[in-house]
Amino acid sequence: MFGLWTGGKEAAVSQAAYYGLFALQHRGQQAAGIAVTDGETMDYHKGKGLLSDVFAQNTLPKGIGALAHVLYSGGKVRTANAQPFVVQYQYGTIAVASNGRLTNASKLREELAKDGAVFSTGVDAELMALLIAKANGRGLEGSIQYMAERLEGAYAAAIMTKDALIAVRDPYGLRPLAIGRTEDGCYVIASENCAFDAVGAVFERDVKPGEIVRIDNGGLHSVGVYPAKRSALCVFEFVYFARVDSAIDGLSVYEARFQAGKRLARVLPVEADLVCGVPDSALAAAIGYAEESKIHYGDGLAKNRYVGRTFIQPDQSQRVRSVHMKLNALQSNVKGKRVVLVDDSIVRGTTSANLVEMLRAAGAKEVHMRISSPIVRFGCPYGIDTYEQSQLIANKMSEEAFRKQIGADTLAFLGLEALREACGAANLDFCEGCFSGEYPTEL
Amino acid sequence: MFGLWTGGKEAAVSQAAYYGLFALQHRGQQAAGIAVTDGETMDYHKGKGLLSDVFAQNTLPKGIGALAHVLYSGGKVRTANAQPFVVQYQYGTIAVASNGRLTNASKLREELAKDGAVFSTGVDAELMALLIAKANGRGLEGSIQYMAERLEGAYAAAIMTKDALIAVRDPYGLRPLAIGRTEDGCYVIASENCAFDAVGAVFERDVKPGEIVRIDNGGLHSVGVYPAKRSALCVFEFVYFARVDSAIDGLSVYEARFQAGKRLARVLPVEADLVCGVPDSALAAAIGYAEESKIHYGDGLAKNRYVGRTFIQPDQSQRVRSVHMKLNALQSNVKGKRVVLVDDSIVRGTTSANLVEMLRAAGAKEVHMRISSPIVRFGCPYGIDTYEQSQLIANKMSEEAFRKQIGADTLAFLGLEALREACGAANLDFCEGCFSGEYPTEL
Amino acid sequence: MFGLWTGGKEAAVSQAAYYGLFALQHRGQQAAGIAVTDGETMDYHKGKGLLSDVFAQNTLPKGIGALAHVLYSGGKVRTANAQPFVVQYQYGTIAVASNGRLTNASKLREELAKDGAVFSTGVDAELMALLIAKANGRGLEGSIQYMAERLEGAYAAAIMTKDALIAVRDPYGLRPLAIGRTEDGCYVIASENCAFDAVGAVFERDVKPGEIVRIDNGGLHSVGVYPAKRSALCVFEFVYFARVDSAIDGLSVYEARFQAGKRLARVLPVEADLVCGVPDSALAAAIGYAEESKIHYGDGLAKNRYVGRTFIQPDQSQRVRSVHMKLNALQSNVKGKRVVLVDDSIVRGTTSANLVEMLRAAGAKEVHMRISSPIVRFGCPYGIDTYEQSQLIANKMSEEAFRKQIGADTLAFLGLEALREACGAANLDFCEGCFSGEYPTEL
Amino acid sequence: MFGLWTGGKEAAVSQAAYYGLFALQHRGQQAAGIAVTDGETMDYHKGKGLLSDVFAQNTLPKGIGALAHVLYSGGKVRTANAQPFVVQYQYGTIAVASNGRLTNASKLREELAKDGAVFSTGVDAELMALLIAKANGRGLEGSIQYMAERLEGAYAAAIMTKDALIAVRDPYGLRPLAIGRTEDGCYVIASENCAFDAVGAVFERDVKPGEIVRIDNGGLHSVGVYPAKRSALCVFEFVYFARVDSAIDGLSVYEARFQAGKRLARVLPVEADLVCGVPDSALAAAIGYAEESKIHYGDGLAKNRYVGRTFIQPDQSQRVRSVHMKLNALQSNVKGKRVVLVDDSIVRGTTSANLVEMLRAAGAKEVHMRISSPIVRFGCPYGIDTYEQSQLIANKMSEEAFRKQIGADTLAFLGLEALREACGAANLDFCEGCFSGEYPTEL
Repeated sequence: MFGLWTGGKEAAVSQAAYYGLFALQHRGQQAAGIAVTDGETMDYHKGKGLLSDVFAQNTLPKGIGALAHVLYSGGKVRTANAQPFVVQYQYGTIAVASNGRLTNASKLREELAKDGAVFSTGVDAELMALLIAKANGRGLEGSIQYMAERLEGAYAAAIMTKDALIAVRDPYGLRPLAIGRTEDGCYVIASENCAFDAVGAVFERDVKPGEIVRIDNGGLHSVGVYPAKRSALCVFEFVYFARVDSAIDGLSVYEARFQAGKRLARVLPVEADLVCGVPDSALAAAIGYAEESKIHYGDGLAKNRYVGRTFIQPDQSQRVRSVHMKLNALQSNVKGKRVVLVDDSIVRGTTSANLVEMLRAAGAKEVHMRISSPIVRFGCPYGIDTYEQSQLIANKMSEEAFRKQIGADTLAFLGLEALREACGAANLDFCEGCFSGEYPTEL
Repeated sequence: MFGLWTGGKEAAVSQAAYYGLFALQHRGQQAAGIAVTDGETMDYHKGKGLLSDVFAQNTLPKGIGALAHVLYSGGKVRTANAQPFVVQYQYGTIAVASNGRLTNASKLREELAKDGAVFSTGVDAELMALLIAKANGRGLEGSIQYMAERLEGAYAAAIMTKDALIAVRDPYGLRPLAIGRTEDGCYVIASENCAFDAVGAVFERDVKPGEIVRIDNGGLHSVGVYPAKRSALCVFEFVYFARVDSAIDGLSVYEARFQAGKRLARVLPVEADLVCGVPDSALAAAIGYAEESKIHYGDGLAKNRYVGRTFIQPDQSQRVRSVHMKLNALQSNVKGKRVVLVDDSIVRGTTSANLVEMLRAAGAKEVHMRISSPIVRFGCPYGIDTYEQSQLIANKMSEEAFRKQIGADTLAFLGLEALREACGAANLDFCEGCFSGEYPTEL
Repeated sequence: MFGLWTGGKEAAVSQAAYYGLFALQHRGQQAAGIAVTDGETMDYHKGKGLLSDVFAQNTLPKGIGALAHVLYSGGKVRTANAQPFVVQYQYGTIAVASNGRLTNASKLREELAKDGAVFSTGVDAELMALLIAKANGRGLEGSIQYMAERLEGAYAAAIMTKDALIAVRDPYGLRPLAIGRTEDGCYVIASENCAFDAVGAVFERDVKPGEIVRIDNGGLHSVGVYPAKRSALCVFEFVYFARVDSAIDGLSVYEARFQAGKRLARVLPVEADLVCGVPDSALAAAIGYAEESKIHYGDGLAKNRYVGRTFIQPDQSQRVRSVHMKLNALQSNVKGKRVVLVDDSIVRGTTSANLVEMLRAAGAKEVHMRISSPIVRFGCPYGIDTYEQSQLIANKMSEEAFRKQIGADTLAFLGLEALREACGAANLDFCEGCFSGEYPTEL
Repeated sequence: MFGLWTGGKEAAVSQAAYYGLFALQHRGQQAAGIAVTDGETMDYHKGKGLLSDVFAQNTLPKGIGALAHVLYSGGKVRTANAQPFVVQYQYGTIAVASNGRLTNASKLREELAKDGAVFSTGVDAELMALLIAKANGRGLEGSIQYMAERLEGAYAAAIMTKDALIAVRDPYGLRPLAIGRTEDGCYVIASENCAFDAVGAVFERDVKPGEIVRIDNGGLHSVGVYPAKRSALCVFEFVYFARVDSAIDGLSVYEARFQAGKRLARVLPVEADLVCGVPDSALAAAIGYAEESKIHYGDGLAKNRYVGRTFIQPDQSQRVRSVHMKLNALQSNVKGKRVVLVDDSIVRGTTSANLVEMLRAAGAKEVHMRISSPIVRFGCPYGIDTYEQSQLIANKMSEEAFRKQIGADTLAFLGLEALREACGAANLDFCEGCFSGEYPTEL
């Protein structure tokens, strides 16, 4: 999610929003959309697929504010589910975009439906718009406060009207949301601050857990902060989801991964000739591992940079090869070596098994798998789709059973405490539900 | 609009809906959509453009019911405005499609908005869905009755749930809606009965003005008929809008145009060598004119059958030629002749001027323009976009001023009374607001 | 095929070519292309599908000359087969486009291949380009003459270089080719003169059978005329292929069809209430039939104006209905009547059978089928794909067998002599091979 | 380029070719194509853009052989220039694909044109097909030998007929070409052996410089080897072009880059806190640099994994930011540090200047730029487009001038001798023309 408000002067805000959103493409590839206001009216374009596909032939007008979103979704995606969700209500037009997942969505839908609401999408943003519309007579800020009081679960959301851009973060701060500023006085908001450089903005501060921030032609002001008893930033943002060049709530993603790698090297030390990481998300941890263990760091797997696009689906008999389309062993570098392969997390273990086999086929003498996070044993109610209910049994497996399935010579995971430390637990409190099964909110 | 209900057995309903809708493409080219239910769930696909474009690569599942719609719209069209409008409400999923235009839409929107409704489209179908959702506890039929009581203006609508297909026509019967039946017992509904042949159905009867008809696995039954004091079928359906192979409320469109042509021949008789019509909508009237006047009938203008698709827009300097891309004079047939050119209606007169010039350039000695309807002097509040407010002045012009602008040797219009007769006024009452300025409903 | 040469001043020639070609879309729907020269270089764009699809997003530069083509082809079409065929040869770049079909193509290909030629398409234009390239040292006009001497069969071709546009017509004049001129001095060439109005040009003259015409900045001059002993314009152009608003070699297509209809009325006179034609190609003949027979003329079948575009293919079980998507009976006009249905030609008779059945289902008491040309009993070696070898047996059928298959009450064909007269045999000599089996050229 | 021959049994060869080619996408993004033979006929599909776009909706039949190609081109690309180039010649159909660039192409074109050849593309493969066609009566292998004798410059080509797949490499071996084999006996050829894993094949051997290899249902045999006096593999394949997981002529690309990095560390040693590489091509060198210099290795720049796709072009005023869309500094890791930034090569230096500025803006105290190859001072006549004639002046600049332009604290390049050693000069002889201006062939 990316938003921008110029403070009143007309500019190519949709183009800027495109650049900003482009830096956040990793947060959702299913759909994309941008809404623009010129202070009078609102226009938007949305569609399925990558940002570059959705906006290949579409141009939006200039304006004073823009709100942009990429959709991350497990299931079948309709254009209707693309965000921002733009609707008219009694006080004009609003665009709503949200990351995360509400845990009381169905309860809220039921409630609203009993009062005659209809739902054309399955997204939280529609619910938010309906709650704002329902908050009759409270004014925009009051309505958003009313909305926030009703929501449970994870959300980092933004609401744009013709007059203002308002950012909201859930009381636990489960999903990140940052504020930046450009030299010429535009305010920007983004899910990760790595998006700021793309538009020439510098990081100002994070939206606080439970905070409502209003940006308009008068500048930025905090409407209020209504935090939960403790903050609970999603630890998986550091493990896998966020970009390494982002810092969330003051903590560098790269540093967290690097530190996790260093700590991982102490878990089950092994003699080896090469430490390599699974590109791209485990490279920082592998560098940390190598530095701590004094084992040589190098590439063991090469990644095809063109993967990620739809391609001809291999049929069942060729399924095994499809991992080769994404990753390939560097034979010259692993042949005859004892290799430590670092990955950031394991969910099902099937990819890991393929990688271990690939390294062995390329001549690795030993393959020691190291995971820079604990086993993902629990589902995420807040919108991260790493874990499927059908995997419950697999995740009750012991580490040894995992090792056998993966086929590694040894296997070790970073403990939760060490991960917490790596991520800077002194300064932050996390949601670690996917590892521990304990969640900050009632479900 | 086209709907189909098999009575319970699964079939290729979306394919049948496609065929049926294809016969109604002339009723709207801006967007198209089909919703399908299998008795449990509902799926749909919608998009901008012609039916053949929207469904070029999309397939819908089999089912027991389908509702399909083509959109007719003057302004900028969004995918979101394509119908059927499919939403979830407290009792499940409904698909709503509607032709026509409500005259109290903004009042209703305001009312609903005050209660917290949000609007993601500008179409009447969304309003209808919201009213149905609001009619809490009345059951489906009761809810639709509740909805119908609130609506003012023109509508021929259909609502599909997983259990039933319900058709509704406004109390004046402004827009047409017909019921047909296939050999194997499927019921179909369509804006015009010309769509029935495409799916092997035969005409059963028209939905009556103010009637609500329910089709489900138990067959068809009339829920109720709540007509206005008088019926007021849109006379422009006969003049221009409907297909010649349709019959509306028992009256043949072809026959109406043919009879209008015959009556037109008596208005301002002229000596001539050839009667020709503007393809395609004025051909039936031209045939009638020729028969009555005993003047030879023939083609004076050829139509390019590939027009209708978007094409490279000619720039201003070549605007005049663009009419040549659509219509072209048949030089061999008009050269040296006194030609009667019959058209169905005149709104602005610019096309007519081009045609007259074209015939003269092709060698016609005289061109006598005859219009088989009165001058369109008033706007249509019920959804026919022939008339723009900006044309008010032009439409205050006298017939003689019109003749001069068009450049014809003589010009004559069919009177309203004669048009009424041609359309079978003995049997039907019409809305003739675009000609008379008198409308059946309060505005 | 459409070509244009401004005489030296730069203009939007590709746009003009688009307009001109648009009027000729009926001559080929498989592929389209436009080449443009600015006097120095040549650019082009080609693609599969209708003109409006191929050029939906493509723009060509301005220039002083353009050559455009629509492809008519029975089999699978590749983009490579789209024309103009643009190649570089020793004297620069040439674009070649051709209508018709060479009868010695495979012999020529073999010959050229023996000398080392390679073929990347199956089109005659490639052969022509190779022959021109082979005519080493003869100059452009000499090379085209050399080429023409080697070609056998039907062709109306054009060759564009950066300096000139050259038109060639085969010695029999089997395929048409006309020259026009705009007010501001541009020369245009087109397969049919109906294309001239679209670009504001007027008909100048036809290219003569066997003539080579050169258009360049110095104007137009005839390079030479090398006719066969007799001319042999394809009579099927008048029967079906050409547009009614064209005149070919001085004879109006509309007039030919109208006269054929008049003569057809004398063949097997019948008492009837209505004469109707199969839209659109048989309407002129039906008008002629009605005028001669004094039977009322009217519409019996309505055509869906959106057909012609690709659409979801009906599956086998619904094949019969697919004819309903294109044509539909006008029940109100045929019910209870004795109907004469005029069509322009019959190849297999399956469509005719469907139409007769459709009219009977709509209530026609009698259906008398009248065909304004003889039975198509022979294949066309010159590129008209009406007739397939597999139909040989069917075409040995007697008229009575045909009648039974079609299901008409009576069936009659216009005789060859009468067709010839209708087409103006006093002035022209035709190829009637598809009717008579006698061809002008050796095969 | 990728080819496959099953040895006679029908298989999903086009799918396999797709997988293989996908691993080679980095060798060309402008166009892609696959030709398939079933032993009788040949089918193909080609188009502009990435492989995944070209084959998004197209499927090719099964077969016994396939030839696939991705196009690398500087200029405007037409579909016609996509390869394989498939033509018919006197002995049937051949598909030709080639990497590299011929240096005598225009001479050959001229020669062939004088004999009447026409050229519909600008690619070497067309020239090759014409030469094969010209080699009348020599048989397929003889014809290819005849062709090879006429060609000068760089090429790694393959020719497929319905009976055989033939691979050819120029006498200097300028461009790579490898042979692999699957478990079930299929032979495959590929520009780089990293493609073999994708289809389950293992590396067998490289095609030798000057060798012609024939693969058919009888297996593989070498038709002949006609090498130049010395081999001259393009050193830039190791520097930048090839994938790290490939080995060319026995030398690992990764190892070469790693070794170059090690040697680079000795050139102008500097005290620093962090060594980082420009992703992705300079990472291996940076790892080598860090290992040799004992300075910490880490990420200094993050790469957006979605770049590479077309996207909205930023306008001039935002040009500087566009580099941010691709690469972004890792502030947390570089802040306050003395950074060594390793890149693989420098052509114009503008990107380098942006990166240095980016690192400084992120807080780097010092930025020391190190390039793991010499300055690219000369053009490449063999098809690598790194160097434009307009850069001649820039490339006469001194290292110090370069440093100033780039804005680095220090700048150093790896010497040619050291690069040669890193690439294994003991075993191989290279073309280093882009660095030295000395080329193996006469130009």
